Order: sequence, then C-alpha cells, then structure tokens
Amino acid sequence: MYVSETRALAAWVVETRIEDIPPDVHAEATRALVNVVGCALGGCREPAVDTALRALKPFFGPPASGVLGRAERADPLHAALLNGISSHVHDYDDTTPKNYGHPSSPVASALFAHASAQRVAGPQFVHAFILGFEAESRVANAVYPAHYSAGWHMTGTAGVFGAAAAIGRLERLSEQQMVWALGLAATQAAGLREMFGSMGKAFHPGRSAQNGYAAALLARAGFTSGERGIDGPRGFAAVTAAQYDLSRITAGLGADFDLRANTYKPFPCGIVNHPTIDGCIQLHRGHQIAGDRIRAVRLRVAPLVLDLCNQQNITRGLQGKFSVHHGAAVGLVRGRAGLQEYSDEAVNHPVIRQVRERTHAMADASVTEDQARVEVEMDDGRTFSVFVEASIGNLSRPMTDAELADKFRGQAVLALPAEQVERVLQQCWTIGQSNDVGSLVAAAVPA
Amino acid sequence: MYVSETRALAAWVVETRIEDIPPDVHAEATRALVNVVGCALGGCREPAVDTALRALKPFFGPPASGVLGRAERADPLHAALLNGISSHVHDYDDTTPKNYGHPSSPVASALFAHASAQRVAGPQFVHAFILGFEAESRVANAVYPAHYSAGWHMTGTAGVFGAAAAIGRLERLSEQQMVWALGLAATQAAGLREMFGSMGKAFHPGRSAQNGYAAALLARAGFTSGERGIDGPRGFAAVTAAQYDLSRITAGLGADFDLRANTYKPFPCGIVNHPTIDGCIQLHRGHQIAGDRIRAVRLRVAPLVLDLCNQQNITRGLQGKFSVHHGAAVGLVRGRAGLQEYSDEAVNHPVIRQVRERTHAMADASVTEDQARVEVEMDDGRTFSVFVEASIGNLSRPMTDAELADKFRGQAVLALPAEQVERVLQQCWTIGQSNDVGSLVAAAVPA
Repeated sequence: MYVSETRALAAWVVETRIEDIPPDVHAEATRALVNVVGCALGGCREPAVDTALRALKPFFGPPASGVLGRAERADPLHAALLNGISSHVHDYDDTTPKNYGHPSSPVASALFAHASAQRVAGPQFVHAFILGFEAESRVANAVYPAHYSAGWHMTGTAGVFGAAAAIGRLERLSEQQMVWALGLAATQAAGLREMFGSMGKAFHPGRSAQNGYAAALLARAGFTSGERGIDGPRGFAAVTAAQYDLSRITAGLGADFDLRANTYKPFPCGIVNHPTIDGCIQLHRGHQIAGDRIRAVRLRVAPLVLDLCNQQNITRGLQGKFSVHHGAAVGLVRGRAGLQEYSDEAVNHPVIRQVRERTHAMADASVTEDQARVEVEMDDGRTFSVFVEASIGNLSRPMTDAELADKFRGQAVLALPAEQVERVLQQCWTIGQSNDVGSLVAAAVPA
Repeated sequence: MYVSETRALAAWVVETRIEDIPPDVHAEATRALVNVVGCALGGCREPAVDTALRALKPFFGPPASGVLGRAERADPLHAALLNGISSHVHDYDDTTPKNYGHPSSPVASALFAHASAQRVAGPQFVHAFILGFEAESRVANAVYPAHYSAGWHMTGTAGVFGAAAAIGRLERLSEQQMVWALGLAATQAAGLREMFGSMGKAFHPGRSAQNGYAAALLARAGFTSGERGIDGPRGFAAVTAAQYDLSRITAGLGADFDLRANTYKPFPCGIVNHPTIDGCIQLHRGHQIAGDRIRAVRLRVAPLVLDLCNQQNITRGLQGKFSVHHGAAVGLVRGRAGLQEYSDEAVNHPVIRQVRERTHAMADASVTEDQARVEVEMDDGRTFSVFVEASIGNLSRPMTDAELADKFRGQAVLALPAEQVERVLQQCWTIGQSNDVGSLVAAAVPA
C-alpha cells in the first residue's frame, strides 16, 4: 500500500523509541545543543531580540517560560520566538552542509521554551530534539537545492517542520495528529532570502519555532490539515521547489541520521565565507601582514559564495556576515573573525573598509564550497597566497568538544557572569541525564 | 530615481488621506465589511474556531479584544486569528475575480481585533481597510496567475500584506517602518492549496491577519526587514511566482481601486462552482425536478473548475465546498445551496450522494469561469438543460444591498438572537460614521 511521505515521516516521529537512536547520534545531539545554547546566550542581548520583546510583550500570555539569557519571561510560544531570534542573530549556529539550513535553532528554541513551562526529562528532550532535527533536515534535503536557489531561507521554511515534530512528540500526538501537525507546519513554511542582512533573517528560526510549536498544539486539539502537506500535488515540496526528491524524506529513515553530518561554525557569518576567512587568518599569522599595507586581495571562490555574499559597500555589522570581502578583510587585518569583527564598528573601521574595498572576488566553478584561494599583494610588491582545501569547522575538520566549549564561553560571557557560564555549560554537556531540562533554562537566566 | 515597488506601495499607504478616496470606493468598502462580519458570525461556532480556541487559549495574552460572535476574549493578535478563521471557514466571504483571493478576511479580522482593543473611529477604520485591501490585492495581481497555479492559496499569502498595511496605517508607521512591515509580511507569506478541504484553509486568513498585525507592530518598534521584501530578487514575487508583473502594484495607485471589482458569494463554496449551482437551481425551480428521479447530470465547465473542485467521493461538508459535483447535486435536489447544504449531513444524504455520483463534469476551454452548461437526464428519458452566461454574484450580476443584508441575517442568526442581528447589521452599514468601531465588535458578541 502506498503511504505518503508525510505520513511515513509522521509515523516514524511518533513511534521511534529512545533506544532506537544510536549512541553516536545522541552524542552529536549533545554537541548541537551545547552549540545552540551558546549561540542563544551570545545573541540574546542583540537589538533584534530587544526590539521583538518591546513590540510583542504586551501580547504575551501567562509567563510560563524562561527565555535563554534574558530576565524576561513569556508564554512558551513567544519564548520559542525569542530563543530562535537569539540563537540565529549572529549567524553563528550550526549548519547542515547537505542543505545549508541551520537546523538546531528552530527545534531547540521550541523545546527549551516547552521544557521551561512543563517538566521534561533529559532523555525525552534529547530524543525529541533528534527527531525534530531529522524531520526538518530530511524535508530540506527533499527540496534542496532548487528550493534554496529560488530564494527560500531553508532555516525558516524547513525549521517549522522540526519544531512541529519535536513538540508533537513530547505532546504525545497520534500518527494522524502528527500528519496534521506536519501539514500545519507546511502551510506556515515561510522565509525569504531577501531578508538577509536585516533582523528579518533571525526572525525566521524564531517564527518557525513558534509556528511549529503552535502547529503541534493545534493538531493535538484536532485542528485538521491536508493529509499530504509535504508531498501532495499542492504541498510544500511541489509548491516551493522546481525540482524535488521525496524519497530523500524516507530513505534510510531510522538508520541514517543527518545529525552525523552537522557542522559548527568557527566564525559568526555565512558559512560559505569560512574557507576565505580561514585562508586569510592563515596568511595573517604566517606573514605578520599589516592591514594598512595591503594593495589588493584576490579571491577565487565557489560560485555560490558570490550568489550569497557579494557585497562590498556595507555599513552595518549584519551586512558584514554576507560579505566575503569583509570576511577576507577582518581575517587579514585582525587575524580573527569573532563577534567583534561583525559589529558596526568593525564594518566601518577605516583599515578594514580599505582592505574590503581592495578585495576582488571571482567565481570559479573548479573551487568547491569548502575551498578558497586567497592571494594578497602588499604595497611593496610582495604577494602571499594560500589554497584552503577544507575549511575549519567542516566535516573533515570538525570543531572538537573543547573548541565548542570555548566558543560557548566566548558567547555566553556576553549574557552571564563567568561562573554562571561554567554551570550552564556543564548542564548542557549533561543534558541527556537531566531530570528536568527546565532547570537548564533557569540556570541560563541572568541573576 | 528608481523607487522599488515595495517602497512605492509603503509610501502610498502611509500618505494617502481619507479625502483622497472616491465615495464609491467608500461605499463598496462598507458592503465588504457588512459581508465579512456576516461571514464571521456565520462561522464563529464552527469546530475549526472551537478547536483553535481550545488549543491556543492557554497562550493568550491580556484579553483586550473581543472576538466576533464569541463570548471569549483574547489578546488582539489571537483575536485577529480567530476572526480570520471564522470569516473564511464557510468559504462564504468575498472574492476578487482579478486574482481569486478572498481579500476582506485578513484585513478586517486584524482591524476588528485592533479596534476592539483601542479606540478607532469609523472613518479611520474604513480608510485603513481600503488601504489594506488595495495593498493586498495589488500584490496578488502582480503574481497572479502563476503564483496561484503553483499551489499557493492567495488569501493567505497576499492577505498578510493587507493586514500589515492596515494595522501599520492605524499605528502611524513612517514610510521606512511601512517598508519593513511589508517586508516582514513578505517573509511570513504562506498558505498551501493542499489544505483545501481541511480546517487548514480557514487557518490561512486567520494566520495572515495575525502575522500581518505582528509585522506592523515589529516594524513600528524598529525591527528591520529587507528593503525590497516584495520586489527584490529574493523577494515575494520572484520567489513565489514563475511569472510576475510588478507594475501591477503601482499602476494607477490611488486612482484605480480593486474594491470596485469585489464580489460577494451567494453560495458558501468555491466561487468557480457558482455558475453550475446557479444553473442547477434554475433547473430545479423551472422543472420541479425530483432528485431521486435523476439518471445523469452532465456539466461543461471552465478547466479551472476541475483543477480546483474535481472531487466526487467525499464524506465531509468541508470537502463539498470543493466539489462541483456536490454543488450540482444540492442545486438540483434542494433548489438551494446555503450553509446547510455544506454540512456533513448534506454531503452524506443518500439522494444528494446519488446525484453527485451520477454527475459527470467535463472541462471545456470555450466556457468561461463565469459560465456553465448543465444538462440533466431524468429516469423517464426527459432532459433539461441550461447555459448560465454569468453567474449571480458576479460583477455583471452583483448582489444588491438587500441581498447582502439577507445573507448577513442568514449567517448571523447562527450566533446571535434575531434582534441583536439587526442591531449589528445596522452598525455595519453605518460603520463609516462610528465614533468607536469597538462598540460594533462588542455588539456582535453573544449576551
């Protein structure tokens, strides 16, 4: 009998047991959660979060949930929104190279909001996270790359499925209810790449966390949707992608896990810029390059890099995240690319601006998205060059647990005192053994 | 200087004065508001509304707003959602033949929620409604028909722009803030035709009312979006339509009003079925047809009818709305097609089911979407036929004010006592002179 991909995915999310998940997937889920909580703490004081809070606070329901890194409380749906904005606003969260979505933010943002409002034990929490991550990533795989090329921001459009699946699992939806939850997710799937460089981008995982959460609640109450929200002739895949492959939703379901292919960013900007930044930092370190002595920078990068990050004339930190020229400039001038290199100050710094304006990026189809060639010409005529084969943070050069912990600390200190940072970090590493994940959220709130 | 269509539309919404609106447009706005309030009262007791209330009530903020036809109160964002579900759940609300969207529900649902929470005078309310209606319909025109053919439900995807524009105008957004409001609307635009026949369809105008409202609030607080949310290379039009014409957003802006081309449904189902139903009712009345004596029904209809409404094997009232076969059956068997003909009971009634199953619909490109040819063959061999040139409710045969009032009464009595119905109807006809539109919402709540 034919079973639609929507129903097959729903059935898997509803039925899979904790003991069906391989241990390495559990371990990677923990790393993903460490990373996303760190990102939320690094982003929670950003204007995008303050602004959303200011605008929407009068509409918050009973404040059952804490918000990661903030003293304010909210109803769980709005807490999911705020967690999602925080954790993506620096573009520092994780990426699946399979579809270039940022998978953890929509799922974890909803789950932490939920677990803050009602008791969820660690094993159930991590399990729901794994299921949500997988559901979302598989839907994304089915429509990638046509969906993304068309201009959709996968993190928003696919994220809503992940949040619906994860919350739906914790809320014990039946298979039919899960079909509806995925359908109501499908019909809320949204998010345009036109928002890149504005607060609208971070809004996407926030809204998808909130909307996926609501989809699960509605479905549990009996709110119906189309039966084939993902795979039907007028469903998500057919409507939003010129080409798609629905078999990628179900192939190897329960055996292959996309979490195994998850990557964590060493730099808080569009991941396609990372090989360039990596190369520029190598040149800075290897040749003690003085930024104000650079005459020209020549980049050869994968065509997608220029599709996404080809802007040179910028004035705001958020824009810098989508400028490969800016990434090259900060790597060469400062030898690093942390949160401070994506501030308004850094974007407008005279030397960084000068190097950015002297950078020429050329698309080269022989260069993969993990690679970059960087050539620097100094004002005395010397030239230095490097070819990056595989950027740090990629699957072949993954960040270690210690590097992830350092990344967490570097972000969390923006929201919390140092000793509190260590306590929260410890709770993240041991989340799978927690009796009550809400205590982690409570611990991640400023005193 | 080039001004993007997003900005041109924003500027118009922000700057247009009440006295710039022609009187006939004001009058048609009043008719549209009478119609949509009636639809909300007719739909407010439906399971879709009850279910959404049950699922989301624990998350409601301070209950500043009344909900049309319901005793429950909600925060304005959730009130907008519920008004939107109510007013579209019977598929009885208005339609613009230019793009087949249902334009009033998303705009009016947000506005009534807003006016219930804070004082809005009638002239400002109607003005904001006209601006929202126009913004939404023009965005829809720009992407129709490719957007709709792809599988998007225009009422959801375009509706969010209307709600954002209308609320943004009442909230006195600056031009820049309105650009962001439209951008945040664009990046929330969603709604799949795969939901047709489920509660998910009525969810679309509700969610777009709620999300457009939130977009305006966020933008006013300074939450930024891309500057070209509608017209940019990764914006709404380019991403969601294979072909589009942005000039339709700005051509004749302020002089031509789509409200003049608005139509009101005499039957609570997909508008493309109306010519068939009209013809079947004519045959029923002209020939005293006995339903159980029908041997066969043959329809020739526009191809779009079968694209949208080609289902015969149905069991639920909601499905009947998208079955031209069912529309033909109730017209022939009962001589009417009111709310009762789209109940589960009617869909499963033996005689109606039998006639539905004996109905054959054929697409005929020579038949327009306003027309239908109906031929009925009786078991004694007699045949009757009719060709409907232009269906009742179409622009060339518009419903009169008296017919709109009767339609209002027929729906409102499902929610309110008869004398209260007349008071609310009177307030709707005089909404443009109201000192406080919130009193209309209060009057439309059961005692």
